[in-house]
Amino acid sequence: MPKIDMDSIEPNNTTGYPSPFDAEVEGRWKRRLGPICGLTDFGVSQVTLKPGAWSSQRHWHNGEDEFLVMVDGEAVLVEDDGRTTLKAGDCAAWPKGSTNGHHLINESPQDCTFVVVGGGTNTGGGYSDIDLAFTSEGKYARKDGTLYPDANRPA
Amino acid sequence: MPKIDMDSIEPNNTTGYPSPFDAEVEGRWKRRLGPICGLTDFGVSQVTLKPGAWSSQRHWHNGEDEFLVMVDGEAVLVEDDGRTTLKAGDCAAWPKGSTNGHHLINESPQDCTFVVVGGGTNTGGGYSDIDLAFTSEGKYARKDGTLYPDANRPA
Repeated sequence: MPKIDMDSIEPNNTTGYPSPFDAEVEGRWKRRLGPICGLTDFGVSQVTLKPGAWSSQRHWHNGEDEFLVMVDGEAVLVEDDGRTTLKAGDCAAWPKGSTNGHHLINESPQDCTFVVVGGGTNTGGGYSDIDLAFTSEGKYARKDGTLYPDANRPA
Repeated sequence: MPKIDMDSIEPNNTTGYPSPFDAEVEGRWKRRLGPICGLTDFGVSQVTLKPGAWSSQRHWHNGEDEFLVMVDGEAVLVEDDGRTTLKAGDCAAWPKGSTNGHHLINESPQDCTFVVVGGGTNTGGGYSDIDLAFTSEGKYARKDGTLYPDANRPA
C-alpha cells in the first residue's frame, strides 16, 4: 500500500480507565494503524495530544516492549528519574519488565503528534502514581487486586 | 530510559547485498535501536538517506510486517503501482506476504531521516527489479535458487 491516508482514519479519544483516571487522557486522539494496514506482528498507532493532554497514566508493561518517535510538536516525557522534552525526531524506548513508569504530557500550547509501537504479549502491568494496575485478562484492578467494575482495557 | 541519545550511537552504511546491488545503498546510514534499548519484540532502526541514496533494493518480506514513519526531509516511495512522496509525519505499512515490493529513494538535495519497524520471523523474501532473493537462512540467492557466494544478510 502507498502512504497511509491519515485523513481517512477517524481518530478516537476513548479510554478504558476507570474514573477519575480518565480525565487526563480526554485530549489524546489515537489512530490505530495496524489493523487497517494488515499488520499483526506489532501494534502501531499515531497519537495526537491536545495542549494539556497526557498520553496515558504513567505506566509500564510486564510483557510488551514499547517504542515512540515524536513527529510533530513537543511533549514532556516523565519517568521515575525526571523529565525530558521530546521534539520532532526524538525517540524513546521502554523494554518490557522495567517498572520505571513513563508517560508524555503536552505542556505546550500546540498539538503534538507521535507514533508509538508495541510488541509482545500482555502479561499485565502497573501504574506508578495511582492505585491502578492492568491484568493479563485486560481488566483494570487496584493494587490490592480487586477489580474496578466495568473497566476494560482496550484491545 | 529517557530520550535515546542518537549522537552516542554510531550509524553504519554496511550491507550484505552482493555487488553490484550494494551501490545504491552506500548513502544509507542506519542506527539499529532495538538491541541498544533492550527491545526484543520487534526491530527498529533510525535511517538517514543521503541525497541519491536508496533505503534498499525494492523488496518484500514473506514473514515480517514492516512499518515506516518519515521524520525529517522527504523521499519517494516506489511500489508496483507507482511513486508517492513521503514527507515528515507520513507513514507507510507493508504487511508480510504481499509481493508488492517497496523502497524509498531520496531524490531531494537534502538528507532525509525515517524510523522503520519490523516484526515477525524471517521466512525469506524477494526483490522486484533484480535477480535477487533472500532466504530464511539469511543468505542471498538468485531467483533460480543458487546462492551468491559470501553474501550474508545482516541479522
